[in-house]
Amino acid sequence: MQVAIALFPRNTALDAIGPYEVLQRIPSIDVVFVGQHRGEVRSDNGMLGLTCDASFDEVTRPDVLVFPGGVGTRALVEDTGVLDWIREVHRHTVFTTSVCTGSLLLGAAGLLTGLTAATHWRATELLESFGAIYTPDRVVEHLPQRIITAAGVSSGIDMALRLVELLVGPEAARASQLMIEYDPQPPFDAGALGKASDATVQLALEYYGQRS
Amino acid sequence: MQVAIALFPRNTALDAIGPYEVLQRIPSIDVVFVGQHRGEVRSDNGMLGLTCDASFDEVTRPDVLVFPGGVGTRALVEDTGVLDWIREVHRHTVFTTSVCTGSLLLGAAGLLTGLTAATHWRATELLESFGAIYTPDRVVEHLPQRIITAAGVSSGIDMALRLVELLVGPEAARASQLMIEYDPQPPFDAGALGKASDATVQLALEYYGQRS
Repeated sequence: MQVAIALFPRNTALDAIGPYEVLQRIPSIDVVFVGQHRGEVRSDNGMLGLTCDASFDEVTRPDVLVFPGGVGTRALVEDTGVLDWIREVHRHTVFTTSVCTGSLLLGAAGLLTGLTAATHWRATELLESFGAIYTPDRVVEHLPQRIITAAGVSSGIDMALRLVELLVGPEAARASQLMIEYDPQPPFDAGALGKASDATVQLALEYYGQRS
Repeated sequence: MQVAIALFPRNTALDAIGPYEVLQRIPSIDVVFVGQHRGEVRSDNGMLGLTCDASFDEVTRPDVLVFPGGVGTRALVEDTGVLDWIREVHRHTVFTTSVCTGSLLLGAAGLLTGLTAATHWRATELLESFGAIYTPDRVVEHLPQRIITAAGVSSGIDMALRLVELLVGPEAARASQLMIEYDPQPPFDAGALGKASDATVQLALEYYGQRS
C-alpha cells in the first residue's frame, strides 16, 4: 500500500511528519514524499529541509494521499498543475486526506464542495471560500467520499491513527500508537481556540506576525 | 537563542520534528539541524530525507541541544566524535535534552550517570547500561544538571512545550500549543506500555521485526 505525502516550499513539517511517523510503522505501508520536483524543499520558516523523493507526475496511483499545510499552501491553491494532480489521484485513492491548511488544496481542487471539513483555526474563512463548511472538529471524515481532513498541525497524528484503523484495523493502529509512545500529556490546555485564553490567542497572532 | 537539533542516519523523524515545530513557533528561538556532515540523512526506514544544515563542529555553543532517537543511535553511541561534541556543548547549554533513544547518546556521553531518565520503552536496559536510572515518566527533568529527557517519539512535543515554558515562559508555551493546535484526541488508549494490551505489545514487536 502506497501513501503519498505531498511536500512543497514553506510546508509545516509536523503536518507531514506526524502522519508519516504513524503510517510508516505499519509494514504493509510504504510512504513516498512527493513534490513539484525531486529534491529539497524548506519548511515555512526556512529552518528545515525535507526531501521530495518523487515528483507529482511520477506518483500517479497512490492508495492514500496526505496533503499537509503550511503558508506555502496559499500559493499552491493557484497552481493548476497541483490541483489537476490532486483531482486525478483522488479518482483512485482509498482515502484522500489533509492536515491543517492542506485542506485548502483539497478545497481548491473541488473535492470539498458542500462537505464539512477541518483546517487550522486561522484558515477557516479561506477554507469556506472554496465551498467547504468549516467545522472545529479535530478530524472530519466522509467515508463515502473517501475524504478525511484534520485540524491544525499536530492533529495529523490523530488522523493517521484513524487512517490506520480504516486501512489495516484497530489493532494495527494501537500498535503504531504504542510504537510512537503516543500517550500525550501536554503541560497546558491551550491547544484549541475554544480552550485558549484571549491573551494566548493574542500572543499566538503576534508570533505569527513576527515569524512570517 | 539557538536550539541545535541533531540528525543522523536512521533517525526517527518525529523525535526531531515534534520539538522543532513547538520551538520554532517562538520568534526568539532559531533552530539549526546539525549532523556529522552537512547534507541529507535518511530516516530509520529510509523513506524520508532530512537536511543537516551544519556539521557538529560548526555549532559549538547552542543554548539548547535536542538529541532525537532512532535505530541509528545504536551505532552513534560508539562514535567518540559525537560524544565529545555532546560533552563540549553541554558545558555551555541552558538545557541539554533528548527524545526517545536520544537519551542513549546523553548516557554514552556520561551525562546521565546516577540520574533518572526517560527513553523509548524498548531501550530501557540499554539506557541503564550507561549508568542512568530508567523511569517510565514521559518527561524527566533535572534542572540543576540542566538535563531533560523524554520518552518515546511523540513525547518530544510535550517536552518541548515544557522547554518553552522554562526558556521563555508559560504564556509563550501556551501560544505555541495553540499554534500547533495540540489538543490531542487519540482514538485509542494504547500509547504507553502500561496501557497497551499484551496483543498490542506483541504486534508492535512483530512490526519492529518486519521493518528493521
